[in-house]
Amino acid sequence: MPPAERLRRQFAFLIECDRLKEIVRQTLNTHSGRQENDAEHSWALCLFVMTLAEHSNEPIDVLRVMKMLLIHDVVEIDAGDTFAYDTSRLADQHEREARAAVRIFGLLPDDQAAEFRALWDEFEARETPDAKFAHAIDRCQAMLLNCLSKGVTWSRYHVRLEQIQARNAPIGDGSATLWSHMSEMLDEMVEAGHLPAAP
Amino acid sequence: MPPAERLRRQFAFLIECDRLKEIVRQTLNTHSGRQENDAEHSWALCLFVMTLAEHSNEPIDVLRVMKMLLIHDVVEIDAGDTFAYDTSRLADQHEREARAAVRIFGLLPDDQAAEFRALWDEFEARETPDAKFAHAIDRCQAMLLNCLSKGVTWSRYHVRLEQIQARNAPIGDGSATLWSHMSEMLDEMVEAGHLPAAP
Repeated sequence: MPPAERLRRQFAFLIECDRLKEIVRQTLNTHSGRQENDAEHSWALCLFVMTLAEHSNEPIDVLRVMKMLLIHDVVEIDAGDTFAYDTSRLADQHEREARAAVRIFGLLPDDQAAEFRALWDEFEARETPDAKFAHAIDRCQAMLLNCLSKGVTWSRYHVRLEQIQARNAPIGDGSATLWSHMSEMLDEMVEAGHLPAAP
Repeated sequence: MPPAERLRRQFAFLIECDRLKEIVRQTLNTHSGRQENDAEHSWALCLFVMTLAEHSNEPIDVLRVMKMLLIHDVVEIDAGDTFAYDTSRLADQHEREARAAVRIFGLLPDDQAAEFRALWDEFEARETPDAKFAHAIDRCQAMLLNCLSKGVTWSRYHVRLEQIQARNAPIGDGSATLWSHMSEMLDEMVEAGHLPAAP
């Protein structure tokens, strides 16, 4: 591929990814209460990794974890954000996102398309230490924002304590320390009356 | 420092940094035309690095470049965004930002406060290959968004072609390839009538 064509494809990918700034999530930003978008979320996750990497259960490659998190939500440009507790849309989530991965990573030069897709597949499979820690951070950050907004999103969708615990237990697969910390935060939410206790 | 206190300080830093989502820049997002915020911008820069690292003039440590870019704007939580062509506010920009760096990085455990501050100082000094490439990407992304929005921000503030060229020439210190590409894009802006030709 001529160098100019390679650069053209890289820019086409980057310009397409700019749409991620408009994909809105259910979590609320701490200081404004505005709904977070996927670009803000992806930046926050990388900053979390930079700050909290020492708490991984296993040794990780921080650069690979960041790369996974930079692109993990890019598929939502086509597939949209799927709320973590929306069981009807969760059913075909992976299929919708896999189609998006083909189109969006396919904008890149072939070698990079393959590299980015492999990182996304690894993140999705959640089997390697890097992917487990990336997932732990993804859930930890969302849980933190939900706690800081006093659980309004959970209340709005009638999400119960045991659902939150089940959804976020994989944090422990990446970091026992972070899961312990977040579990304490959840207990405090119940004590403060922001979340009903389990029946 | 007890482990719980270390984690408490790390979370205090991360929660404070959530404010970056509300610091608005002059550049406009491609697809919505909405003003970009610092968190979105920082994510985009890291994605640019992940995609364009091969175009650096010199060998770089991609992880260090990403870390610099994740935190390079955190000081704007206190100091605000300074528009690249606002000469009155540019005069005391570094002083305002250095005060912010003391406070915000100071929320972290001491070893991390020192590490993050050193990365920020390195970015600001623009002397190492990592910092030069980080700066190149910072300006390249802003320039790209400005071109894609047909230069409306430049027009609004009566920014002239030669000012844009002077401001963005440091892209070439990090990547001759990217500066050549962006210069062509600027020529196209003039040809299309979105930017007046130099007198």
